[in-house]
Amino acid sequence: MTAQFRKGHGTGNDFVLLPLGSPDPDPSQVRRLTDRRTGIGGDGVLRVVRTPDAADPAVQAMAGRAAYFMDYRNADGSLAEMCGNGARVFARHLVQTGHEQPGEFAVATRGGVRRIRIAEQGDVAVEIGRAEFSRLRVAPVVQVGERSWSAVAVFLPNPHAVVFVDDLTAAGPLATAPVVAPDQLFPEGVNVEFVVTVGERHVAMRVYERGVGETHSCGTGAVAAMVVAAARDEAPAATTYTVDVPGGRLQVRRDDAGLLWLHGPAEFVAEGTTSLLD
Amino acid sequence: MTAQFRKGHGTGNDFVLLPLGSPDPDPSQVRRLTDRRTGIGGDGVLRVVRTPDAADPAVQAMAGRAAYFMDYRNADGSLAEMCGNGARVFARHLVQTGHEQPGEFAVATRGGVRRIRIAEQGDVAVEIGRAEFSRLRVAPVVQVGERSWSAVAVFLPNPHAVVFVDDLTAAGPLATAPVVAPDQLFPEGVNVEFVVTVGERHVAMRVYERGVGETHSCGTGAVAAMVVAAARDEAPAATTYTVDVPGGRLQVRRDDAGLLWLHGPAEFVAEGTTSLLD
Repeated sequence: MTAQFRKGHGTGNDFVLLPLGSPDPDPSQVRRLTDRRTGIGGDGVLRVVRTPDAADPAVQAMAGRAAYFMDYRNADGSLAEMCGNGARVFARHLVQTGHEQPGEFAVATRGGVRRIRIAEQGDVAVEIGRAEFSRLRVAPVVQVGERSWSAVAVFLPNPHAVVFVDDLTAAGPLATAPVVAPDQLFPEGVNVEFVVTVGERHVAMRVYERGVGETHSCGTGAVAAMVVAAARDEAPAATTYTVDVPGGRLQVRRDDAGLLWLHGPAEFVAEGTTSLLD
Repeated sequence: MTAQFRKGHGTGNDFVLLPLGSPDPDPSQVRRLTDRRTGIGGDGVLRVVRTPDAADPAVQAMAGRAAYFMDYRNADGSLAEMCGNGARVFARHLVQTGHEQPGEFAVATRGGVRRIRIAEQGDVAVEIGRAEFSRLRVAPVVQVGERSWSAVAVFLPNPHAVVFVDDLTAAGPLATAPVVAPDQLFPEGVNVEFVVTVGERHVAMRVYERGVGETHSCGTGAVAAMVVAAARDEAPAATTYTVDVPGGRLQVRRDDAGLLWLHGPAEFVAEGTTSLLD
């Protein structure tokens, strides 16, 4: 039990955080840490690294803009560029440990530098960037069993297919991935969001994450749902939506510059030592 | 983060352990601790209590025979009498913390006093008691989809229906509980084990636990599978079987007195403090 860890989550999207100075886990160690029965359990691992110490020169180059690098791995051990819910949990840790001060700062990720806004308590906001709608020539069609819906493709830059439905139960249990047609539209796969209007500037959603399955929350999925809702509603450029996900409530804000911000809770529930990196 | 915890497992059956002196969690706190995303995660909670300090007079009465009471709760917050995999993890903790010495000792449970055999390293054995076959007048029939099998009912004393199959995949994905006929045969529900012969004194199994679903391991389920296998094999009274479960390997030993012992691994992977009992 020699390595330090913390366990935290944002709207049920949960992470094992390895604090500054932790060893760099190999993929099999990541899988051991994130195993929900024989490990600590989580959707991914967040490791705190001083940006100049990052192994990747592209990340080192962000050192002037962000003091800390969020070294994020998926639960399967693979590298990931960015994770919106993870970035909020990571930022909470930086403030709780005094690495950063409350207010605004930036973190380095493999997907670039992301701005954070955080107070001592309450929600944390992370800049997600801009949404791109225009890459595809045909609209995707999402099929679940006998039902199908026309979807809107959104890139953040990861790919999303957003479907507005009358009822979130319409897609059924989602035990397997929805079929997205035509084939080859998303050669690297796509996250599918089913969205329903709850009220003014307020939607609720379910998400099927590529390679994962239906999840409690997906930060970029919430942002994708918001931008499609805002387009349907002809909302002004600067606007904020509430997005309910199965694991809780997020808010997505689009600022005057068209930048999208994901606001939501981030908390730690346990911390200590583990033998899983011995 | 004021309460102490440890996270451990035996063949993937995992537990949050609250050490001696921990607060007594209410059902909602148990659910918070065992939540796999917003908590620490586990199939149940094991709380260490000095037997004379137990709230239940029936447990207090065991104080002369067992120094510590395994206060076990299911993940849903309900009380449980006994858990074979949990008892091994509990015993490992008692030895690691110096509460008990390696060798043989007993622990108090709501299901009675159970003997433990443990060394500094390696497997831990817990006495499960005797199996009872004879309570039912008709043999249960287990149905999954279009298929059905005649089963053997075993009480340990919790109820099991054991089915020998040619192939463990025959029962399919077991997304829902197998149907056990006739109705009312098991008014409190039943655990269903699908068992295949692997070799001499060696079986493999899958288990659908009542109220839980298909699990990585079920200690009494492994014992139920062994006693039915031993009857089929006309094994001698004193015999040992290897029982492979999805989460690992157990051994079930029947001693000269007909007492059944569950042998298997038990380890802790993390420990620290949690805010979930604040």
